[in-house]
Amino acid sequence: MNQRRSFLKTSATGAVATGALAAPMIAKAQSPEVRWRLASSFPKALDTIYGAAEVLSKRVAAVTNNRFQIRVFAGGEIVPAFGVADAVGNGTVEIGHTASYYYVGKNPTFGLTTSIPFGMNARQMSAWMYHGGGLQVSREFYKQFGFLNYPGGNTGAQMGGWWRKEIQTVADLKGIKIRNPGFGGRVHAALGAVPQQIPGGEIYQALERGTIDAAEWVGPYDDEKLGLQKIAKFYYYPGWWEPGPLLEFYVNQKAFDALPADYKAALEGACHEADITMTAEYDAKNPAALARLVNAGAQLRAFSPAIMQAAYKASQDIYNDEANKLPEFKKVFDSYSRFQRDSSRWMRVCEAAMDNFRPAA
Amino acid sequence: MNQRRSFLKTSATGAVATGALAAPMIAKAQSPEVRWRLASSFPKALDTIYGAAEVLSKRVAAVTNNRFQIRVFAGGEIVPAFGVADAVGNGTVEIGHTASYYYVGKNPTFGLTTSIPFGMNARQMSAWMYHGGGLQVSREFYKQFGFLNYPGGNTGAQMGGWWRKEIQTVADLKGIKIRNPGFGGRVHAALGAVPQQIPGGEIYQALERGTIDAAEWVGPYDDEKLGLQKIAKFYYYPGWWEPGPLLEFYVNQKAFDALPADYKAALEGACHEADITMTAEYDAKNPAALARLVNAGAQLRAFSPAIMQAAYKASQDIYNDEANKLPEFKKVFDSYSRFQRDSSRWMRVCEAAMDNFRPAA
Repeated sequence: MNQRRSFLKTSATGAVATGALAAPMIAKAQSPEVRWRLASSFPKALDTIYGAAEVLSKRVAAVTNNRFQIRVFAGGEIVPAFGVADAVGNGTVEIGHTASYYYVGKNPTFGLTTSIPFGMNARQMSAWMYHGGGLQVSREFYKQFGFLNYPGGNTGAQMGGWWRKEIQTVADLKGIKIRNPGFGGRVHAALGAVPQQIPGGEIYQALERGTIDAAEWVGPYDDEKLGLQKIAKFYYYPGWWEPGPLLEFYVNQKAFDALPADYKAALEGACHEADITMTAEYDAKNPAALARLVNAGAQLRAFSPAIMQAAYKASQDIYNDEANKLPEFKKVFDSYSRFQRDSSRWMRVCEAAMDNFRPAA
Repeated sequence: MNQRRSFLKTSATGAVATGALAAPMIAKAQSPEVRWRLASSFPKALDTIYGAAEVLSKRVAAVTNNRFQIRVFAGGEIVPAFGVADAVGNGTVEIGHTASYYYVGKNPTFGLTTSIPFGMNARQMSAWMYHGGGLQVSREFYKQFGFLNYPGGNTGAQMGGWWRKEIQTVADLKGIKIRNPGFGGRVHAALGAVPQQIPGGEIYQALERGTIDAAEWVGPYDDEKLGLQKIAKFYYYPGWWEPGPLLEFYVNQKAFDALPADYKAALEGACHEADITMTAEYDAKNPAALARLVNAGAQLRAFSPAIMQAAYKASQDIYNDEANKLPEFKKVFDSYSRFQRDSSRWMRVCEAAMDNFRPAA
């Protein structure tokens, strides 16, 4: 941090000297060279998510004539995948790209800006964040950790993962060991299953060896690469625990404050681009991947209404419990759940009527 | 155009002189002052759509330290609302913000990048454009008109408008005079209705006087401002003729080519931001507006399955007809309809299962 600040100072001084000789050039001549490091929580293998950080980096460089450069590092390269919040907060890196729900152990409020069971879909998350108060309430919450956030792409509703056996009733879930972190895991536990936290790279082996009975990951495009279809043939939907997971860029507040106004603007603008294009990329890649998986023998199964209803009820109990215990969870959740309720009343009228239309045979 | 080009030259010369004295400043010292005019097709009263052009303008100015400024003009101020494509193509203005389907009279292919009856929803349009080939095929088509395009916001599925009488069967549509331009109007005509082209500002009077029997506009937020709820109480959904209307920025190709690389990048990045934030804004504003309309007495009605199916069938006949007549329509439509088919197979599995979940009472 200190190194960069001293550069800023030098550059500004240089500009004043130049300005005396060529007045109209002053504004741009002050543009300092800035080098940031971005710690992603994701491996390059998750190319769509990882790629969002590269979209950001390229756009920022392009609009600043390469004077503001953000170098992207994959999860674990310079910061552990789940250490991104800390690393951005303490200034080890200036910016991170991560999923907030990785930090629910730190504070359950983190879960709300990614996705919660039976929460909002991708469009709703975007509307809540940009125009429904989501960005404000989440920034108030993040302030204590030393960073601010920008939406950074949405995977869309995720799949319910790969199951070795079919399940119909809540009783069928009893004792099922499922890879499912976060709030989804807590809901599964409430229903009698045994949630496991397993990094992506170890899921295949755990499922193959029978250490776990089921595993969820992302959606067809990413799931296909893990190869889980070879060892668990029932592919369930929907992933009710992740109806619209939003990734986020975390930006160290001091590093942000030290940026010139045009670089701040470049960063903000580029976050929006990374956000919309990542979602679009998943939406473009998932259909063909699902078709390939089904052609290769994956058996699509919908979670039964009984399981969906029980999971819904358990999830609401957990949110109420957290809201009663933790005022900052309550504050963000109140904003979230009010927006979801209002938004769904509209989406269920117009969007749903259109989306649910099927041509007669 | 010539004036700006000569400025570019002067500025570059100036920079070389400065460069000899302060080498590290060269790159930015070359940044020229660029002033563009943006012709919107929309009145300021359509504040959400109109605002997208202002989002673009503000971001471009901010990332270039106000050296690249885009001044936004409302529809009719310097260019007629429906003259934006021509004005951008012939260089009267450098950039426009418009709905391509205003130009179906010029060529029906224009309809495909906005919205067509029973076409794609907002997320699908975004995925098709950015990662599904939509931007490529539409740019190939637009080339002949002298401009290139960027997605510029989506209203989401629109409502089916205000009807003085309830309709149940296709026969009920016979002779109904409905304000509904473009492909929607053609489908209505095929079903026996009499479509009318009426500018937004004249709809209220036409409906009040009984010159028309029904009128569609946008969605709850914009419809409420027209006041149609006072004169036609049945508010139908969904607007099957506009399941996900995308606005677009048109950019004059020569003006774009003349921009320095960093200004091109600033413009491209800002278009993405305008795109995602406009959609988010509608999604945030429509729910409360719908609630207000219903509280004020609007009677929500769903179009009957019979009308939906008949409209679907008529729309497919029109597309097939256009594709047979016009190779460039066929090319864009093939890309569009293939993407829609594949995307819907995926969205109907996972997103729909989640969106359609309802908690037990």
